[in-house]
Amino acid sequence: MKKKFLIFILSIFPVFVFANDGYGLWLQYLPFENKAITEYYSDYLDNIVLLGNSPTHEVIHKELEFAYSGFFDKKIGKISRTNTGSGLLWIGKLDDFPKEIKDALSEYAQSLNDEGFLLHYLKGKLIVSSKTDIGLLYGTYAFLKKIQTRKKLEDLHEISNPKIQKRLLNHWDNLNRTVERGYAGFSIWNWHRLPQHIDQQYIDYARANASIGINGTSITNVNANALVLTSEYLEKAAALADAFRPYGIKIYLTARFNAPMVLDNLPTADPLNPEVQQWWKDKVKEIYAYIPDFGGFLVKADSEGQPGPHNYGRTQADGANMLADAVKPFGGIVMWRAFVYNEHTPTDRIRQAYDEFKPLDGKFSDNVIVQVKNGPLDFQPKEPFHPLFGAMPETPLMMEFQITKEYLGQDTHWVNLASMWEEVLQSDTYANGPGSTVSKVLDGSLHDYKLTGIAGVSNIGTDRNWTGHQTAQADWYAFGQLAWNPNQNIEIIAEDWIRMTFSNDPEVIKTMKGIMMNSYEILVNYMTPLGLHHIMARSHHWGPGPWVTGGGRDDWTATYYHKANSDSIGFDRTETGSNALAQYAHEWKEIWGDSETIPLEFLLWFHRMPWNKKLFTGNTLWDELAISYQKGVEGARWMQQEWNKLEGLIDPDRFKHIASFLKIQVNEAEWWRDACLLYFGQYSKMPLPEGVEAPKHDLNYYLNFKRNFVPGI
Amino acid sequence: MKKKFLIFILSIFPVFVFANDGYGLWLQYLPFENKAITEYYSDYLDNIVLLGNSPTHEVIHKELEFAYSGFFDKKIGKISRTNTGSGLLWIGKLDDFPKEIKDALSEYAQSLNDEGFLLHYLKGKLIVSSKTDIGLLYGTYAFLKKIQTRKKLEDLHEISNPKIQKRLLNHWDNLNRTVERGYAGFSIWNWHRLPQHIDQQYIDYARANASIGINGTSITNVNANALVLTSEYLEKAAALADAFRPYGIKIYLTARFNAPMVLDNLPTADPLNPEVQQWWKDKVKEIYAYIPDFGGFLVKADSEGQPGPHNYGRTQADGANMLADAVKPFGGIVMWRAFVYNEHTPTDRIRQAYDEFKPLDGKFSDNVIVQVKNGPLDFQPKEPFHPLFGAMPETPLMMEFQITKEYLGQDTHWVNLASMWEEVLQSDTYANGPGSTVSKVLDGSLHDYKLTGIAGVSNIGTDRNWTGHQTAQADWYAFGQLAWNPNQNIEIIAEDWIRMTFSNDPEVIKTMKGIMMNSYEILVNYMTPLGLHHIMARSHHWGPGPWVTGGGRDDWTATYYHKANSDSIGFDRTETGSNALAQYAHEWKEIWGDSETIPLEFLLWFHRMPWNKKLFTGNTLWDELAISYQKGVEGARWMQQEWNKLEGLIDPDRFKHIASFLKIQVNEAEWWRDACLLYFGQYSKMPLPEGVEAPKHDLNYYLNFKRNFVPGI
Repeated sequence: MKKKFLIFILSIFPVFVFANDGYGLWLQYLPFENKAITEYYSDYLDNIVLLGNSPTHEVIHKELEFAYSGFFDKKIGKISRTNTGSGLLWIGKLDDFPKEIKDALSEYAQSLNDEGFLLHYLKGKLIVSSKTDIGLLYGTYAFLKKIQTRKKLEDLHEISNPKIQKRLLNHWDNLNRTVERGYAGFSIWNWHRLPQHIDQQYIDYARANASIGINGTSITNVNANALVLTSEYLEKAAALADAFRPYGIKIYLTARFNAPMVLDNLPTADPLNPEVQQWWKDKVKEIYAYIPDFGGFLVKADSEGQPGPHNYGRTQADGANMLADAVKPFGGIVMWRAFVYNEHTPTDRIRQAYDEFKPLDGKFSDNVIVQVKNGPLDFQPKEPFHPLFGAMPETPLMMEFQITKEYLGQDTHWVNLASMWEEVLQSDTYANGPGSTVSKVLDGSLHDYKLTGIAGVSNIGTDRNWTGHQTAQADWYAFGQLAWNPNQNIEIIAEDWIRMTFSNDPEVIKTMKGIMMNSYEILVNYMTPLGLHHIMARSHHWGPGPWVTGGGRDDWTATYYHKANSDSIGFDRTETGSNALAQYAHEWKEIWGDSETIPLEFLLWFHRMPWNKKLFTGNTLWDELAISYQKGVEGARWMQQEWNKLEGLIDPDRFKHIASFLKIQVNEAEWWRDACLLYFGQYSKMPLPEGVEAPKHDLNYYLNFKRNFVPGI
Repeated sequence: MKKKFLIFILSIFPVFVFANDGYGLWLQYLPFENKAITEYYSDYLDNIVLLGNSPTHEVIHKELEFAYSGFFDKKIGKISRTNTGSGLLWIGKLDDFPKEIKDALSEYAQSLNDEGFLLHYLKGKLIVSSKTDIGLLYGTYAFLKKIQTRKKLEDLHEISNPKIQKRLLNHWDNLNRTVERGYAGFSIWNWHRLPQHIDQQYIDYARANASIGINGTSITNVNANALVLTSEYLEKAAALADAFRPYGIKIYLTARFNAPMVLDNLPTADPLNPEVQQWWKDKVKEIYAYIPDFGGFLVKADSEGQPGPHNYGRTQADGANMLADAVKPFGGIVMWRAFVYNEHTPTDRIRQAYDEFKPLDGKFSDNVIVQVKNGPLDFQPKEPFHPLFGAMPETPLMMEFQITKEYLGQDTHWVNLASMWEEVLQSDTYANGPGSTVSKVLDGSLHDYKLTGIAGVSNIGTDRNWTGHQTAQADWYAFGQLAWNPNQNIEIIAEDWIRMTFSNDPEVIKTMKGIMMNSYEILVNYMTPLGLHHIMARSHHWGPGPWVTGGGRDDWTATYYHKANSDSIGFDRTETGSNALAQYAHEWKEIWGDSETIPLEFLLWFHRMPWNKKLFTGNTLWDELAISYQKGVEGARWMQQEWNKLEGLIDPDRFKHIASFLKIQVNEAEWWRDACLLYFGQYSKMPLPEGVEAPKHDLNYYLNFKRNFVPGI
C-alpha cells in the first residue's frame, strides 16, 4: 500500500518559476523536487483525518491546506473531520481519538504537558496528538516540518514539551510605527487601521510564531508610551489578541511606570502610594475587560531616562510587586527588566544590575520574573554571560536575547545569532556546582523556579521579507527553537531552517550551514576581537566608533570601555580594577582572572594590557588585534565566495538579495578593520603586521564619515 | 495552423490555490482560465522573436519570461534573439526587422513618435514595433495587456503615442522614510541601503510605471530637505537612476529654495544674486556628474513655510528661471508649483495662485513648466478646475493630480479617482472658444506649448500591496493611462485594470466596474456634498472637522470655507463676494454665477445660501444637504453589498482585505454624515428630513473624538 521511503540524493531540483521575496519564511512549503518524493508524502497528505473542533482546529485545517498547495501545486482534497477508517494521517487530541487509538497512546499521555505534542507511527497510521488544542497545532507544525525536511515517517516517535513556559517576542515598536533598533523597515502594527482591519500579515505573524512555539508577544517598546494603556489603544490591542488567540499567542504590554501621572494627573507614581496602587488595579481591570487572557506587563524602569521606583526612593522589587499585585487576580505576570544602570553610580556600568538586584533576591512576588540580558553590558557581539544568572535562586529569572542586530551589523550583515546564544545558554554558572548552566537557570531546573521565561527582541518589520536580511529569518526561527528547548543542537536548527526556507539540495545545505556556523566568529573578529566592546558609533550604533568620547554620559562612550592610551588598552575588571569579575563563581575568577590563560575573546573585557605584551599565540597584543581584524575581513570575503557558489541553486531573487548584502558586509568589515586599527594605531604606534592590509583611507576619513537618518533610533 | 479565437464566456474560472497579497498589481499575469484560451495564446508566446540589443531589450526579455510563467505556470522556452522564420510574435524596433517586414510597416513609421509603439498583425505574424528601445517596451506591455484582457490578436492594428511628454510620479517622501500624506506605510526608498543594494521592489516599481507609460519620478517631498542635494544622497539617487534607466524613467529631485544657505552658508538665496546663481550652477553640474540624464527640479516655494523668491522681493518667475538657467545646458527642466498662497494676503485663498501667476505669463524660461493642482484649493473631493488652465497661453502648464487620497478617505475608502480626473480633464476652459478643454491645455494643442507634462502625487508605500487599499492600485494605473492620453475612456481603463488585476470573469468585471463608476459620487455625497469643502479634521485631515476654527491661520480652518451661521452657509465667490468666479471664462460666470442654475455640486463653493432656500429639486437647502449625506451613506452600503457578491470569485486574501476596508468605509461615511449634520444642524435648527437616519452619537462625541498618530503627517 505504501511506497518506499526513497533515498533523495537522486532528486532533481526545480527550476525557479516564480519570484520569491522571502515572505513565506520557513513556511514556504516548497514544491517537492521529484515524483518519488511527491508520491511518498501524498499517501499521508491525501488521507488526513482531523478530529475535534475549536478555533485552533480551524487554524490547523487551513495550515494543512496551505502546506498542501505549496508541496503539490494544487488544492487539497477533503480533509475528513470525522472518524474514518481510511485515514493515514490522524490529527487530534488524545481525548478526541477513537478508543483503540487512545488506548494505544495512553502510555505516552503522562509524558505530555499542556503545550506538548506527540508524533507517533501506529500500525500504518501517522498520529499527531496532544492534550490541548494548542499542543495539537504545535504537533501539526512539527509533522509538516518532517515533510519539509524530507524525513522518513514510518518510524516516527517523538514526544516534545517546551522546557520554558513563557516564550516571548519583545517588539520595541513605537506607536508612530518607528521601531527602536529596528532595521527591517517599520512596525508591522498598523494601529490606525485597528481594531477594524486584521491584516493577513498579522495572521502570518501568528502562524510563523506558533510554528516555532512562541506563545506571547509584547507589542510595544520598553521605552514606553503610556498612551498604549488608554482605551483608544486597548481596543486595538484586543483586536490583535483576538486574532492571535487561536495560535496560542498572548498579548503583553509595556507599562510606563509613571502612567498614573501622565494619563490621569496623579501627583506621584510612588509604588507604595495607595492611590497609585488603586490606579493600577483599576487600569488592569480595564485591560482584562478588553483582553480576558492578557499576559501581563513588561517594564523598563529606572534606566536610560525611564521613570521608575528609584524616583521615590523605592526598590525595584517595590515597583515590580505593585504591578504584580494588580495583575495577579487575573493570572497575569510582570516581566521586570534588570537592565538598570545609572551614570551617577560611580561603579563600572556592567556591575550595576547585579549590585542592585542580587540583594533583592527573594523579595519579588511570585508572579514577577526578572528579565536579564544575556550579558552584563548591552547585547555586544561578545560578552560573558550575565552574572545574575545563578545568583538569584529565590527569584525567577528569564533571558532577554536581542534578535534584532543592533550591535551585530544591523540589517545587512549575515551572522547566525544562535551561535552566540548557544555559548550563553551552555555557559556554566557553577551556582550549584559544575553543570549549572544558564539553560538550567532558564528552564527552572537549577533553582526550581515556578515561573520560567525567555524573550527575544524582535527583528521584524515592514520589509517584504520581514527581517531585512533574508538570513535574519534564521535568527527568529532559532530563537523560537531555543525558547522551546534551550539545549537544542544549533547545527540541526540551522539545517532545518535552510531546508524549509531555501532548499533540500545537499549542496545548498552544506554551503549555507558552513557560512552560518562560521559567521559569528567572523563577525566578532572584524568588529570586536579580543574582548573589545562598545566601540561602535554613537546613538545609531552603525559602524565603528572607537573614538566616541565625551557628550555628557561617560558610560555611553567608547573610550570608557577600551581606555586605550600609548601604553595599554582594555578595562581592568579584576581585583585591581572594577572587580566586576567578583560577581562570578570562583571557577570563572580563576579562568578569567589570569591574563595569561583567559580565552583571548575576553582578554580586554577583563584585563588592561600593554600593546607590546606577548600573548601565548606568540604575537604581541597589537599584532594579535590587527591579525584578528584581518581574519574577520577575510572571513567575510570567504562567506561571499561561498554564497556565490549557490547561484542557480537558489531562486534568483533571494540569491541576489543576499549577494548584495554580502557585498555590503565585506565593505563594512573592511571599514571596521581600517577605522579601528587606524584609531588604536595612534596609541600603539606599532606597524601593521605582515598579512594585514593597509587601510583604504586615513583616520580623518573615518572620523568624518557621517550619514543622516540611519535607521533604528 | 492557428486555433480559432474562442468565445470566452464558457470559461471555467480557477480555484485560488495561492495567497495573493496584491503585490503583482496589474502585472499579475494570472493563469488562463481554460484550455482553449491557453492554447490560443500559446501559439504566440511559444514562438517569440525579439530583435535588437539594449538594456531595455533585456527588460523586455525578462518581462516576457515573467508573463509566461504566470499565464502558463511553467518556464518559457527559448526566446529567439535572431531573425528566424518560424516566429509568430515579432518584437523589435523598425530598424532591427528584416527588410520585408520593415517595408511592410514603413507606412506607419511616420505616425510614431519617439515613445510610441505599433501593434500590427501582418500575414500570420504579430508585430510589436517602435522607433526606440523604450517605445518597444511600451509596445510589449501593450501587447501583454491584450492577452491579459483576452483580446483577439489576428486583427490587431494599433498605433499609440503618448500625448503628454513628461509623465511623472511625485513622491512626497521624506529622507527619514515617513511620507507626507502617505497612507500605505512608509517610503519604499530605503536610503540607508542605497547605493549598494538595489531591491527587487525598485525594479518592480519601474516595471509597474513603465507598463503604464510613466517616464519620470520625483523621489523626494516638495516640502524639501536640502540634504538630498548633497553627495551623500546624490550617490544614492544615482543608483536609483541607473536602475530605472532601462525602463525609461528619469529621476527628478525637489530643490529647497534656500539650499545655498542651508548647505553652504551663503548669506542669501536671492535668485538674482550672482553667487547664488553660481552655487546652483555648480550644484547642477555635480548632480549631472552623478546622473547624466537627470530630469530636473520640482519646486515648492513661498508656500506653507517653504522659502522662495518672495523672501527677497522677487517673483516666482525670477526663482524658476534661475534654476532653469542652471539645468538648461544639460537638458533639464524645472517644474515650478503654482500652489502659492499666504495667510497675509487678504483675498480668498483660492484666488491667490491665479492672481500671482497670471501676470507672469510669458515671463518664464522655456524649460520651466508651471505645475498646477487640478483645482484652486487643495485636492478637495470636489473642486472646479483650476482657473489658471487656459489662462497662461505663453507659459507651459502641467497638471498635478493627487493619487494619494489625502481628502478622499485616505487608505481605507474605495473611490475611483479617474472619475474625478476625467471631470477636470474634460472641463472646458473656453480659452479659445468652446472645446478648449483642460486636456488640450495639457497636451499642448490649445496653446502650442513646446513642453507638456502631468504629475501624480504617489499613493505608494511599504504596504505589501503598495497602495494600502487594494483598489487604490487602480488610481495609480488610471493616472498612467490618462497621462499617456488624457482623453481615454475611464470605463475602459477600469475594465482593463479589473481584468489584469483580479479576473476576466464577467461577473467580477461587471460588479467591480459598477462600484468603481459610482464610487466618486458616493464619496462626495457623504463627505462634501453641494460644494462644501475643507471641512475635514485639522492637520491629519482624517475624518470630518466642520468645527475646525482658530489656531493662527484662518485659511487652514473649516469655518473660513463654510461660514455657516444661523441664516446661511457657503462662500460667496461671485461679484458680491470674493469674486474668485471672475477668474473663469464668461461661460462659466453665467453657469456658476447664478445660484438658481448652478449644478448643485458647486452651489456652496460659489454661493452663500439661506438654510431654508428652496432649490430646484423641491427641497430646502438643509433638506438637500441632509439627503445628500444620507445618499452617500447608502451608496457606501451598496458598494459593500455589491462587493460581498464576489466572495468565491476573487481570491480570498484580497476579497477579505477589501471587505474589511469597506466596513470601515461604511462606518466612516456614517461618521461624516452624523458629525456634519449635527454640526450644521446647530445653525440651521431644522429637523432631519424623512429618510435621513438619526445620528449614532451626540455632537460632543464627535467633537471629542481624537486619535493619536494618525498617519500621513
